[in-house]
Amino acid sequence: MSKNAIVLLSGGLDSATILAIAKSKNYDVFAISFDYGQRHKVELSQAKTIAQHMAVVEHHIINIDLRQFGDSALTDSIEVPSHRNEEEMSSCIPVTYVPARNTIFLSYALAYAEVKQCSNIFIGVNAIDYSGYPDCRPEFIAAFEKLAKLATKASVEGSDKIKIHTPLMHMTKAEIIKKGLSLGVNYELTHSCYSPNKIGLACGICDSCLLRLKGFEKAGEKDPLKYV
Amino acid sequence: MSKNAIVLLSGGLDSATILAIAKSKNYDVFAISFDYGQRHKVELSQAKTIAQHMAVVEHHIINIDLRQFGDSALTDSIEVPSHRNEEEMSSCIPVTYVPARNTIFLSYALAYAEVKQCSNIFIGVNAIDYSGYPDCRPEFIAAFEKLAKLATKASVEGSDKIKIHTPLMHMTKAEIIKKGLSLGVNYELTHSCYSPNKIGLACGICDSCLLRLKGFEKAGEKDPLKYV
Repeated sequence: MSKNAIVLLSGGLDSATILAIAKSKNYDVFAISFDYGQRHKVELSQAKTIAQHMAVVEHHIINIDLRQFGDSALTDSIEVPSHRNEEEMSSCIPVTYVPARNTIFLSYALAYAEVKQCSNIFIGVNAIDYSGYPDCRPEFIAAFEKLAKLATKASVEGSDKIKIHTPLMHMTKAEIIKKGLSLGVNYELTHSCYSPNKIGLACGICDSCLLRLKGFEKAGEKDPLKYV
Repeated sequence: MSKNAIVLLSGGLDSATILAIAKSKNYDVFAISFDYGQRHKVELSQAKTIAQHMAVVEHHIINIDLRQFGDSALTDSIEVPSHRNEEEMSSCIPVTYVPARNTIFLSYALAYAEVKQCSNIFIGVNAIDYSGYPDCRPEFIAAFEKLAKLATKASVEGSDKIKIHTPLMHMTKAEIIKKGLSLGVNYELTHSCYSPNKIGLACGICDSCLLRLKGFEKAGEKDPLKYV
């Protein structure tokens, strides 16, 4: 039985935490990140640093071409919202939504898993803080897992079935931070901001920064990150 | 109700036929092809020619990075089998299998569909001639359709549900060819060979050429393609 796992590593707080969780369960980690034209490229350099720091077996950064299609604040010029309260954040699909993003990310993870003959994929989705994203919901993950069981050689040949691990699904940001700290995650290496300045410093006012800061506050911890 | 459709266009015989079927149903077609490091690049230039010839609204060729993972005869140096009989072709997963290929292709099609606010995707999968590929089976397509309904903004907002059209699913190659000819498809523009020569001529002996040639023969038609 392979103890390999694919971990989707964005370079953010959540994905660094799931990497630590996978390692704590004795998986050898194959990490995968995506360059999809995001404005906050600093995230990818942090993903590289985290992958090295946490001693993964391999780390691939996959170039995906979503810019050809457009329609997303993360990849084009729509203004990233700031200072929104929790109700505003969760009441609608965020403008930072990227079409079919987690479907594409998980598809690549599935291909990678198949090549590495590994049946475990970790993804840091969360149904509490990201309730606005359709592809972060438990029913989406369950549907992908079902698809994966039908999609691969292994599924035809009756060997290992793909399991999608979502250890953060029902945790609050504060719980995620506490869990990560207990596993020794260095959150100074993680990047969360949708709208960093030129040298990569976090803005402190976009949805993602606000969720992060509130999470540290509720956890009774200090965010080690520098803000503008 | 949008009459837009996304068509997955490989440049092969099957995908040219589904493009013609989508047009015959009065869809405005947005075609998408994938450069995944296939050895038979001529397929992509044929996709471009077919897209122009059949007057699609847009055609995107998406670069996908499966070479990073390896493990496929279409993308690396494993020898493509030749002269296999039908039993040999269908009794095992073909060595030309690409990991999670249709999962990735459909994920991009889903993103494209979302951007174009379109709920119809056409894919030329076939359960008869390609029974060796897990991701060509009806249960795989049904699972993807279910996933798509959970994955997108439209699914959350209660608007159009994604429909994956697989008009070729239960047709023999001969039936596909007859259907395409009745719709005016010019099969001279299509490419099927896994192992073309330097100037793009089909080999006539790989699985894909043999299926194609037998299909024309059974349809009582002459393949307009030139072979080595």
